[in-house]
Amino acid sequence: MFKKRENVAAIEEGKLLSPKFDASGLIPVITTDYKTGHVLMHGYMNADAFKKTIEKKEAYYWSRSRKQVWHKGETSGFVQKVVEIRIDDDQDSIWMSVDIGDGASCHVGYKSCFYRSIPLGKIQDTQAVKMEFKEKKKKFDPNIVYKGKPNPTKV
Amino acid sequence: MFKKRENVAAIEEGKLLSPKFDASGLIPVITTDYKTGHVLMHGYMNADAFKKTIEKKEAYYWSRSRKQVWHKGETSGFVQKVVEIRIDDDQDSIWMSVDIGDGASCHVGYKSCFYRSIPLGKIQDTQAVKMEFKEKKKKFDPNIVYKGKPNPTKV
Repeated sequence: MFKKRENVAAIEEGKLLSPKFDASGLIPVITTDYKTGHVLMHGYMNADAFKKTIEKKEAYYWSRSRKQVWHKGETSGFVQKVVEIRIDDDQDSIWMSVDIGDGASCHVGYKSCFYRSIPLGKIQDTQAVKMEFKEKKKKFDPNIVYKGKPNPTKV
Repeated sequence: MFKKRENVAAIEEGKLLSPKFDASGLIPVITTDYKTGHVLMHGYMNADAFKKTIEKKEAYYWSRSRKQVWHKGETSGFVQKVVEIRIDDDQDSIWMSVDIGDGASCHVGYKSCFYRSIPLGKIQDTQAVKMEFKEKKKKFDPNIVYKGKPNPTKV
């Protein structure tokens, strides 16, 4: 299903899908809300998750914490319906536009994983940078939805 | 300027910036057009590029092909003015919304690096997947703009 990567012109200007997976067999995935254009999450797929996503039109990722293919929403119910998938010039990253209805994408409970904004301008090297919460209210309570499951965030 | 990563609650629910750089010292960056919400590119920053971007309000990346900090637009003139920067729940990826005016972001000449769409549905394992060009016309001629420079795309 994937064309062998043979030359730069075919990779950049050709029509055949020749994705580049990294040394761990993964490709980064940007997931946006098809209605608002907001970025919902940044994830990874292996070849199997990528194929499943294209065929089933629902998002599958590679979970780096659990080391397995993961059907997004299998625990929370917040499935991502795929609207469009694009690949970039050198075919080493994916942009996926999805429909999550009135749901959420972030395991912390927010709609988007990107719920905090970083102030721009001069930084004091000795002082931590203080962010602003752009989402004020969680869409769900992760303590209920993910009860008994380990948190994927690592220090 | 970066708070030490000490516990999951502070990383996910706190206001202090504690980015996680990977084993190569990099963090992935999603860059979108602030007007359309379209994804323009997927790049990487090291700590220095991240700091420069926040302070100068123009995008700096780490070039993995050239192994150096790279001021986007230094050759092409297509500078990215930063409108907003957000970080995700576990602080290991960045979403940056930028203003590129009527410019372009892709070294191949297109506005977005994601100019090809992958058809959804059943895949024939023995057949390559044929994509569709969503941008029909280049914004600039890379042979003129990048004359004499090596192409960053690798097979």
